Amino acid sequence: MKIRVYYEDVDTGGIVYHSKYINFCERARSEIFFTKEISPKSGEYHFVVKSLEAHYHKPAFLGDMLEVGTKLLEAKGAVVRLYHWIKKEELLCFEMTITLVCMRGLRPARPPQEFVQVLQSVQN
Amino acid sequence: MKIRVYYEDVDTGGIVYHSKYINFCERARSEIFFTKEISPKSGEYHFVVKSLEAHYHKPAFLGDMLEVGTKLLEAKGAVVRLYHWIKKEELLCFEMTITLVCMRGLRPARPPQEFVQVLQSVQN
Amino acid sequence: MKIRVYYEDVDTGGIVYHSKYINFCERARSEIFFTKEISPKSGEYHFVVKSLEAHYHKPAFLGDMLEVGTKLLEAKGAVVRLYHWIKKEELLCFEMTITLVCMRGLRPARPPQEFVQVLQSVQN
Amino acid sequence: MKIRVYYEDVDTGGIVYHSKYINFCERARSEIFFTKEISPKSGEYHFVVKSLEAHYHKPAFLGDMLEVGTKLLEAKGAVVRLYHWIKKEELLCFEMTITLVCMRGLRPARPPQEFVQVLQSVQN
Repeated sequence: MKIRVYYEDVDTGGIVYHSKYINFCERARSEIFFTKEISPKSGEYHFVVKSLEAHYHKPAFLGDMLEVGTKLLEAKGAVVRLYHWIKKEELLCFEMTITLVCMRGLRPARPPQEFVQVLQSVQN
Repeated sequence: MKIRVYYEDVDTGGIVYHSKYINFCERARSEIFFTKEISPKSGEYHFVVKSLEAHYHKPAFLGDMLEVGTKLLEAKGAVVRLYHWIKKEELLCFEMTITLVCMRGLRPARPPQEFVQVLQSVQN
Repeated sequence: MKIRVYYEDVDTGGIVYHSKYINFCERARSEIFFTKEISPKSGEYHFVVKSLEAHYHKPAFLGDMLEVGTKLLEAKGAVVRLYHWIKKEELLCFEMTITLVCMRGLRPARPPQEFVQVLQSVQN
Repeated sequence: MKIRVYYEDVDTGGIVYHSKYINFCERARSEIFFTKEISPKSGEYHFVVKSLEAHYHKPAFLGDMLEVGTKLLEAKGAVVRLYHWIKKEELLCFEMTITLVCMRGLRPARPPQEFVQVLQSVQN
């Protein structure tokens, strides 16, 4: 998924603000669902973030065109672990692993089959 | 209401991004409700924005402490018109008039009495 | 320009937050420059927002694919007036007119020729 | 530091968007500098984020008043490690450790004495 860096994404010096990379990964993650015309918030089911670990390698700047990738690491019970990376012209800018929990209403639950299929499409 | 300008609010050059002033006004507007322990989204009632007109006078910078004001201009039927201003040490940075519509579910409705009282507290 | 609505763009109820439409217009405006490989912040030249007037017609929701348009209304001296619209499947969601001032460092200045050419490309 | 949750901070369901907690920590971190009338971006010196690890415990909602804390874990050469926590009425919502690198222009550098003093004020 391609994401352009706009004014709203940068702070002083024209560098992308650190939490915005995490937003970009969320866009990529949601887009995998939207392109299959499935909402990641379907009926009672939705995801919540449990933890994340992020590493910043190279800064991105205003006007840069970034590539954002998503890979399924593990889906076990209600827990889904994903790996995201952000590159600028083959150069690694950012990496993150994120642990999500699928919820059915207020309780953790095994994701429905349509969610599993979407996630498996980025298994490798 | 005092609002500090943080990194997330500025773009290149350390100047506040233009739509952020509009967020600051929304914070001031909501705070009037929250300080009275009333939610601006109460039962079926909530507000939607119908239109706004904003004027930018002086830029604000990273670390600035801004003062944000709210004044009720008119409340008539479901429609509420407010005036917001943002100052930095007595210097006017930003002015906005905003027209809100009070909704009850999906329909415009006269605001409930508790909303009216909150709004009248900033009538002058 | 197509813009997808993500989680970061919506507030409670899954409706796009009112100032986000203004960000979407800024993306569209900047994209006109970036696609021509010109930065809207070129050497000493850049734009600042002087005023804007926005009208909200229909709400947009999480996952919606929006179309954002930009049209040059007037360029006279340092002042540039633009019209933006946002549609969802031919339905008008949002309209805005925005007045920008081209700056050369700290002073208003007639935009450089490359800026003028970019702006004239959306004259009609 | 007290931070109120506003509409711009929440997504569908009225829950704070996951990357916003990271912004709240940055506000608290910057505020430590601003209250001492020192900018965290002073002359050639500034900080960049190298990595962060975040844990989400309890969701925060629209209108909640959060308390955000900052503690210095380690300052060694150019590297500064901080611990942040976010609580709602004594309940832990969020924890994060963040590793910053102090830069002098484009190179890592030992932070200037005034930065060190600010950071040491939250050593315990």
